Amino acid sequence: MSGLVTLGEAMAVLTSPIVGPLRHAPNLTLGVAGAEATVAIGVARLGGQATWIGRVGDDEFGRLIRMTLAGQQLPAEHVLTDEHAPTALMVKERRTGTRTRVSYYRTGSAGSRLRPADVDETAVQRAGALHLTGITPALSESARDAAFAATESARAAGVPISFDLNYRRALWTPDEATAALHPLASAATVLFATEDEARLLVDGSDPAQLAHALAALGPREVVIKRGGDGAVALTDGEIVTVPPRPTTVVDPVGAGDSFAAAYLAARLRGDPVRQRLDDAAAAGALTVAVRGDWEGLPDRSELAADTSDVTR
Amino acid sequence: MSGLVTLGEAMAVLTSPIVGPLRHAPNLTLGVAGAEATVAIGVARLGGQATWIGRVGDDEFGRLIRMTLAGQQLPAEHVLTDEHAPTALMVKERRTGTRTRVSYYRTGSAGSRLRPADVDETAVQRAGALHLTGITPALSESARDAAFAATESARAAGVPISFDLNYRRALWTPDEATAALHPLASAATVLFATEDEARLLVDGSDPAQLAHALAALGPREVVIKRGGDGAVALTDGEIVTVPPRPTTVVDPVGAGDSFAAAYLAARLRGDPVRQRLDDAAAAGALTVAVRGDWEGLPDRSELAADTSDVTR
Amino acid sequence: MSGLVTLGEAMAVLTSPIVGPLRHAPNLTLGVAGAEATVAIGVARLGGQATWIGRVGDDEFGRLIRMTLAGQQLPAEHVLTDEHAPTALMVKERRTGTRTRVSYYRTGSAGSRLRPADVDETAVQRAGALHLTGITPALSESARDAAFAATESARAAGVPISFDLNYRRALWTPDEATAALHPLASAATVLFATEDEARLLVDGSDPAQLAHALAALGPREVVIKRGGDGAVALTDGEIVTVPPRPTTVVDPVGAGDSFAAAYLAARLRGDPVRQRLDDAAAAGALTVAVRGDWEGLPDRSELAADTSDVTR
Amino acid sequence: MSGLVTLGEAMAVLTSPIVGPLRHAPNLTLGVAGAEATVAIGVARLGGQATWIGRVGDDEFGRLIRMTLAGQQLPAEHVLTDEHAPTALMVKERRTGTRTRVSYYRTGSAGSRLRPADVDETAVQRAGALHLTGITPALSESARDAAFAATESARAAGVPISFDLNYRRALWTPDEATAALHPLASAATVLFATEDEARLLVDGSDPAQLAHALAALGPREVVIKRGGDGAVALTDGEIVTVPPRPTTVVDPVGAGDSFAAAYLAARLRGDPVRQRLDDAAAAGALTVAVRGDWEGLPDRSELAADTSDVTR
Amino acid sequence: MSGLVTLGEAMAVLTSPIVGPLRHAPNLTLGVAGAEATVAIGVARLGGQATWIGRVGDDEFGRLIRMTLAGQQLPAEHVLTDEHAPTALMVKERRTGTRTRVSYYRTGSAGSRLRPADVDETAVQRAGALHLTGITPALSESARDAAFAATESARAAGVPISFDLNYRRALWTPDEATAALHPLASAATVLFATEDEARLLVDGSDPAQLAHALAALGPREVVIKRGGDGAVALTDGEIVTVPPRPTTVVDPVGAGDSFAAAYLAARLRGDPVRQRLDDAAAAGALTVAVRGDWEGLPDRSELAADTSDVTR
Amino acid sequence: MSGLVTLGEAMAVLTSPIVGPLRHAPNLTLGVAGAEATVAIGVARLGGQATWIGRVGDDEFGRLIRMTLAGQQLPAEHVLTDEHAPTALMVKERRTGTRTRVSYYRTGSAGSRLRPADVDETAVQRAGALHLTGITPALSESARDAAFAATESARAAGVPISFDLNYRRALWTPDEATAALHPLASAATVLFATEDEARLLVDGSDPAQLAHALAALGPREVVIKRGGDGAVALTDGEIVTVPPRPTTVVDPVGAGDSFAAAYLAARLRGDPVRQRLDDAAAAGALTVAVRGDWEGLPDRSELAADTSDVTR
Repeated sequence: MSGLVTLGEAMAVLTSPIVGPLRHAPNLTLGVAGAEATVAIGVARLGGQATWIGRVGDDEFGRLIRMTLAGQQLPAEHVLTDEHAPTALMVKERRTGTRTRVSYYRTGSAGSRLRPADVDETAVQRAGALHLTGITPALSESARDAAFAATESARAAGVPISFDLNYRRALWTPDEATAALHPLASAATVLFATEDEARLLVDGSDPAQLAHALAALGPREVVIKRGGDGAVALTDGEIVTVPPRPTTVVDPVGAGDSFAAAYLAARLRGDPVRQRLDDAAAAGALTVAVRGDWEGLPDRSELAADTSDVTR
Repeated sequence: MSGLVTLGEAMAVLTSPIVGPLRHAPNLTLGVAGAEATVAIGVARLGGQATWIGRVGDDEFGRLIRMTLAGQQLPAEHVLTDEHAPTALMVKERRTGTRTRVSYYRTGSAGSRLRPADVDETAVQRAGALHLTGITPALSESARDAAFAATESARAAGVPISFDLNYRRALWTPDEATAALHPLASAATVLFATEDEARLLVDGSDPAQLAHALAALGPREVVIKRGGDGAVALTDGEIVTVPPRPTTVVDPVGAGDSFAAAYLAARLRGDPVRQRLDDAAAAGALTVAVRGDWEGLPDRSELAADTSDVTR
Repeated sequence: MSGLVTLGEAMAVLTSPIVGPLRHAPNLTLGVAGAEATVAIGVARLGGQATWIGRVGDDEFGRLIRMTLAGQQLPAEHVLTDEHAPTALMVKERRTGTRTRVSYYRTGSAGSRLRPADVDETAVQRAGALHLTGITPALSESARDAAFAATESARAAGVPISFDLNYRRALWTPDEATAALHPLASAATVLFATEDEARLLVDGSDPAQLAHALAALGPREVVIKRGGDGAVALTDGEIVTVPPRPTTVVDPVGAGDSFAAAYLAARLRGDPVRQRLDDAAAAGALTVAVRGDWEGLPDRSELAADTSDVTR
Repeated sequence: MSGLVTLGEAMAVLTSPIVGPLRHAPNLTLGVAGAEATVAIGVARLGGQATWIGRVGDDEFGRLIRMTLAGQQLPAEHVLTDEHAPTALMVKERRTGTRTRVSYYRTGSAGSRLRPADVDETAVQRAGALHLTGITPALSESARDAAFAATESARAAGVPISFDLNYRRALWTPDEATAALHPLASAATVLFATEDEARLLVDGSDPAQLAHALAALGPREVVIKRGGDGAVALTDGEIVTVPPRPTTVVDPVGAGDSFAAAYLAARLRGDPVRQRLDDAAAAGALTVAVRGDWEGLPDRSELAADTSDVTR
Repeated sequence: MSGLVTLGEAMAVLTSPIVGPLRHAPNLTLGVAGAEATVAIGVARLGGQATWIGRVGDDEFGRLIRMTLAGQQLPAEHVLTDEHAPTALMVKERRTGTRTRVSYYRTGSAGSRLRPADVDETAVQRAGALHLTGITPALSESARDAAFAATESARAAGVPISFDLNYRRALWTPDEATAALHPLASAATVLFATEDEARLLVDGSDPAQLAHALAALGPREVVIKRGGDGAVALTDGEIVTVPPRPTTVVDPVGAGDSFAAAYLAARLRGDPVRQRLDDAAAAGALTVAVRGDWEGLPDRSELAADTSDVTR
Repeated sequence: MSGLVTLGEAMAVLTSPIVGPLRHAPNLTLGVAGAEATVAIGVARLGGQATWIGRVGDDEFGRLIRMTLAGQQLPAEHVLTDEHAPTALMVKERRTGTRTRVSYYRTGSAGSRLRPADVDETAVQRAGALHLTGITPALSESARDAAFAATESARAAGVPISFDLNYRRALWTPDEATAALHPLASAATVLFATEDEARLLVDGSDPAQLAHALAALGPREVVIKRGGDGAVALTDGEIVTVPPRPTTVVDPVGAGDSFAAAYLAARLRGDPVRQRLDDAAAAGALTVAVRGDWEGLPDRSELAADTSDVTR
């Protein structure tokens, strides 16, 4: 197997279909979210193999996650059922057209009870890449252990490790995060970060500086995600820059995961860094144009298409 | 003040608008639920004064509860904000047209952190009645203490205590419930129970037997709620029976609370037991004919109206 | 022309899609209503010609009515625009599954400003039947005059007059109604009434008695509409009874108009009274099974079909 | 492998959410339908293995079917993509609360282009049962050939063949159907039919007679599905009757497939005929209580539950 | 009491959820509107006390207004019920994404029957400010009298009077408005106007000139609201300018009232003019970013927040 | 009669209300579409007479089209019912906020079975203009014959022919289109084309060049539609340019037809080319600001209005 293996927590997500304070929304849209699951779906849509490992509760939200991930071609056997805890919930409020507020029902959730024994070592060792995010170690001690165990398996088997810092301030403080994320970032082969996230670990005034500083921690490839300003990558000591794609932002959430997914899918296929970044930028632009974290993730034909085209 | 004072937990409630497994619902209706809040709203709609005491989180669901209860004329100053815990969530699935499955995100919630100091003693002492349910003591130790503290204040001030057994199997086992509910039932002036709930505390084969057995624990009035079979009350040693009202069941949840609210509103006005039961039966019938726990609660003119009437 | 001509007021109608107090409905369904328009649509769907005469305002609700009636094949030239008054509104609350409450924004409306000059005399004189209801004379003096003028034109030209008592208590008192409806009932060739409506004009304990008493006022045909109990007609001194059709009531409003429409469509085709009543009963049963006053009105093939049939 | 293998056409289905003529529906619900896919989903939900073989177009409706079937744990590799034809569409109108009218956009569809080469012989030979319906041979000559080829493979390998007559009058005439279905019915091990469908092939006045007459054609087991009247089975010369389960009918479509699925799932587990029929009746009752053909199909715990239960 | 007292008419508002001619909208969103109620809600959300005085009908729309205002913490005792007239309706069409057309069912409404006796003199005399708009005097003679009576009470008690010209062309002509608004503007302490509204009373080519000319009529503070161009205030002879806040306009209605509310809330707290204008501009920007007149009104923490922030 | 006569296919159209892949849309909006019907509706809304000739199936989608077109004042007698074929379907996916993907269920549809005998020669001969598009000849041979027959009738009677190239790549190849469209373009009096469409028939680098080259084929008037860049017309050898109107694009589909409709309506009234183009540009701008192909088409008062105006 040369696909992507990732692990984390997937949640049911309730989103207000209207813009404004959530308390005025008569109903909420029900879906599925989770940074690592989004990356896995993104890789699968782009033709790669992808496996997501995690726990859901023995409840309807858990069954929704199973159904959704299986529907996106992620293998069902790694979606574990925890009978002793509920599936986590995320609530998304669109406070204004461009400002999203997110809260969680995640404490003690099934997903946060992920532990090292859940991680299928064979799957990790046969993977083309292992992908982790900075969210998983924030969930619980056992989840952090699981992340480290997966990292260890991958390192031992020579499997490249992708790590996206993905700092979530609702889950922990910057200090807690810095301590936990440093060893994972150092162990990574490919490291994704926004500029703000990079500054949790290193100093630097511009993206290129930050990339060099992060690379000094260990990673061979560092990708600084700059949202509406494009991205900057450092590979083999060389800086590559990709400009932002023109798009209309409908829902900014999911862009970073879509970006990482397309980058990793191209990397798994052996495409050079320039192509990886082009794919990543196009995927990000398509994703933010659609409501939902992952529903707008493109397949390969859409990635190639002229995004301004009207077909009749 | 001669109104009702009650305390408990109010939750945001997410209900599937379609019948069937929740995982297939593309969106969920957002509302407010809570047995004690429903009773308070019911009393207020029928022209009584009503006060609900409880905690909500400092989040949009908490603000939704504040807004909703204030909109139903419950005084805002007793809806306390707890900045350290989220508002509880209830999820309602309509598995078939007549079968509802309920789950909770309630552990560690703001509402479950209710404690004795939250209970405004003056309000209780001036009340026409204190209403409690068997749900509050199931939430946490501090909530149980709050229920007992309120009972003690009422007893000391000679305020009648209404207690609805309201057993929730998702919250505790029958044994746990029996232990906690026994003293509260014994302290009650008016006790509401279904036949099944009555059997947690006493033995008996028919409603009248159960009523007598419960009365032997202490309450002067016992009301056995029989849903589609009407109700049986025992007051001053006399059994009064009320037949069910014809209705079309749209949503059975809330019927018991509506029944209790109308009974208590009539009692606060000084109506005799026959009238209380008539009002209670009519209120229950109107409530189950409407989606939502409390939205269909009647005002006094609706209680009086011929329910089969079409007005143009 | 051998079709039906009718006149009256059509309104925009706002209906709560949920059952319960309207104040809890986050949105209202927008449609068109009006007893006479419903009858005209019913006749047109059953293959007859039908003309509706009335006024709408120069506003979006007026344009909605024009669009809707033209879409149902009613000629546009008789839908008059009154630039000096708004289109009337009707608000429908589904208080319970079987109980509807209706209120109006109708005072001073464009439709109530109907006057004799609006009634196209030539159209009336060439009609196969003129249909009026007891609603129009309740709207305003000029509307009452218009109803009488149309009656006069029809009588002079030997055109049969159909009159449906249609008492609306929101518009006038029984005494006012009795005074105004008596001459119109007396002038009618075919008279439709419910038992309650019949008792505004005559005495009688059962449908047959009421029919005979009404016939004594003038009409050759009297049809007593009994809703879920079927109907009774008196023609040429003979009583004909039709049993109710089995149906599931979704929205009882519109059943009487649908019944009258099917009766009149069959009468215009020359069908005997038994067939008219059969069609009327079938049309009423199909109409109440559908939300909306007229949307469920059947065409001829649907009238003939086995209503319990599932076709794949 | 001891699971079920089935083949047929799955379609996108557009259903009116309101009751009444479809032309008045402002929007249509989008889903997936197909008798054989429903049976496969039903077996999978009840814990069995199930494989559905068929073609979809290279379009969004085709991708919807892939996503939906994979989400229900049916293996993706047998959902074939035909780039030269569109995915079929089914349009469902709820003409009244109990009467559904169905029409198709199915001529020349991807699904109808199924052909013998699409049928994975190995999968059939290893199956615990092959399930076919009378719909597939009605779609096209190549689809009929595929059905016969699968039958031949199963017979050669000793795999039991389940056949549901499933006559669709929109697809062919009774005479055409009789000719094509006779050999398939004769080859079946288990034969499902309604009374009307049975009479396409044999004579008989009551379910038992019909079952005996059908068994004389070849099948060892005959099950007569009687909808609201329960079911009658003939196995090894013995008649077993199952009464209908009490239910509230929301959507009758899918009941027969759900019935067959539960029967077959129990049969694959080796349960006796009485248990198979009990499961089948319970599954049918749960399915008709939910909108959608397959969404309400139960899992094993739901099959066992007291269907009138309200859990809080 | 040092809060705001205001009076006026609140209406049920029906808004098309789709952009385009209202006649094509299958349903309309139901809400509450009214300039003065919006200001009162705005002050309450920002932590001030606010009282709204007005009449509603004894109907569901009236109950909706009571429920909504009470839910926003406005005291229920000043929401008067008029049993003899219906609650007013406002209909909002979104003709294009940026163009709204509004019509009213307001003639003879309960709200327009406001009269001097409805104005609680004590409440006015104890207020921190009285707020009126140019809409109330346009409703009826008695409403105009009520506005003048309130002004008189305030002046006598030394309570600052805030007046927003709020010219509504659907209600009266410019000449009628000029005559009625002049004395109220002259009596005001704080006067709000758009440039167009200012020109009903004075001449002037730019905002500063208009502000000076209005101040010459009497008011100590004049605020010229310039929508997307910010605002200009004249206080104590000094011009203060606030630039517009960047925002995405979703619904422009309500911006002026939100602006006034935030200005007045800051004034009641004793904040200097610069802070009042900053708050006002921020509140306006947040309000137009949300559908609905008042639902997007901010609380104090939202006013302070970086509006472009995405929180996870 | 001096109105517009046009012929073509009208379809039921299913549109995703959400942005993103259609497979994730839980429901689809139902409407009516068709380039020629849109032009006819546009002319009728602007006060002209308009007749649309075409076939629909004997099904609910066909009845929807009849109802919709009659509701827009197009004469019902030319909407022919074909009992042997279904009404065509169009499916519209909004892949991103600005990118629409369209697919058809149109093969063998009722509309594609249009043939010369369906074209009412008298209607064409009395028309003020005949309008055709390049879609009709792409549907079938008989439809192409019908287009040519109508052209011939118009030419013989001296009726001006309007032709909009309207190339649809889903229906045929550029080569097929070029061959079929050339004679129709040559026969046209007024020719509409986008720059890309023009290049199917002629060469040219800019709009003016293309217009001259197209005029050389025969048409007296050539209008190059440039979408967001305005339009260029060549009449009597003179180039007239119209700049784009500022607008917010909600749904780009229908803009070209709206443009043509307003141009032709002005032409039928005898307005000069400058006015025709102004109307056309305003109509296009209003149409793209509204969801749906034709629902946003303006009437004459809307065309005149200041499109940025907010009326209260």
